[in-house]
Amino acid sequence: MVKSEIRVLGVDDGQFVPHSKSQVHVVGIVFRGGYWLEGAMSTLITIDGFDATGNIAEMIKNSPHYRQLRVVMLNGITFAGFNVVDIKELNAQTGLPVIAVTNKKPNLKEVRAALEHLPESKKRWNAVLNAGELLSITTRDGKRKIYVETAGISRSVAIEVLRLTSTRSKIPEPLRVAHLVASGISLNTAQGCNL
Amino acid sequence: MVKSEIRVLGVDDGQFVPHSKSQVHVVGIVFRGGYWLEGAMSTLITIDGFDATGNIAEMIKNSPHYRQLRVVMLNGITFAGFNVVDIKELNAQTGLPVIAVTNKKPNLKEVRAALEHLPESKKRWNAVLNAGELLSITTRDGKRKIYVETAGISRSVAIEVLRLTSTRSKIPEPLRVAHLVASGISLNTAQGCNL
Repeated sequence: MVKSEIRVLGVDDGQFVPHSKSQVHVVGIVFRGGYWLEGAMSTLITIDGFDATGNIAEMIKNSPHYRQLRVVMLNGITFAGFNVVDIKELNAQTGLPVIAVTNKKPNLKEVRAALEHLPESKKRWNAVLNAGELLSITTRDGKRKIYVETAGISRSVAIEVLRLTSTRSKIPEPLRVAHLVASGISLNTAQGCNL
Repeated sequence: MVKSEIRVLGVDDGQFVPHSKSQVHVVGIVFRGGYWLEGAMSTLITIDGFDATGNIAEMIKNSPHYRQLRVVMLNGITFAGFNVVDIKELNAQTGLPVIAVTNKKPNLKEVRAALEHLPESKKRWNAVLNAGELLSITTRDGKRKIYVETAGISRSVAIEVLRLTSTRSKIPEPLRVAHLVASGISLNTAQGCNL
């Protein structure tokens, strides 16, 4: 039985114009259960780089919320272009279960084809494969599905956490808000930061 | 009668080490009523500068949420040190009512003394005076007060909006969340931005 006030971190990246900048903001939003926003954190990762797993792990471990967190949710596993998060490695580095959530079913053939155009495509593809089995889950009305990959958490507990936190849409609230904040802050801030 | 789903923007600035950087993040969080987070925006302002009013006005007017917004709430009127927001001017530039909210009653004598150490202290002091009368309001339990200054909105409507949006604490939710997000993202991002 998952506690209703479980601390969950939702992680998403900001918008960027491809090839125009070297780094992208990643925002983490801490929720207590599905209603109470309790905190925020951020880091920067390299477009099409290999630092997403390590930088997100550091962001989490350096946060004052780290000891309270029980689950990390990611908006998919590819950040800042094809900077792939290895969810098993993120789970190992943070000691926290990881759930990667996508709205649409990922097309692995397309992902692999896109990766071929990038340096070290095999390394990226291995991180994609390392995400393991894709589960299809309904979080709210029993109709609209989301797709998840998990590390360090059982299917049944993952479903419980996803349903508990999907209070306002089929997307868990920490991820919905992380997406809005990362999108909203990335545009203007980039101008001033010369990223 | 204020609509329960009124769009309110909460604005707060991030943390900074005094004199270490030239600019600070300002974050705006859009709420629909007191529960649904609908968007985010950001800008940068100069520490102890004079661009808070203009940059916050531009941030609001350039946002895709501008047409839906009905009220702007600020966490006080001094941002990024003593970059004072002239709330009458912000109201005029955006066409939106402005409510500046503080948790503790500002001590104007202390504010004036602090301003004396800065260039163009008279200009800053005039912006402080321009905020007008300080109102003391209880938003929730009839006990814990907040202090507000307003521009472009009647006292009674301001109280209605403040009570409607103070769903989780005595501080209106758009401001509570803007504070958490601005504080959380400013620390790490600053490292990468070389602000």
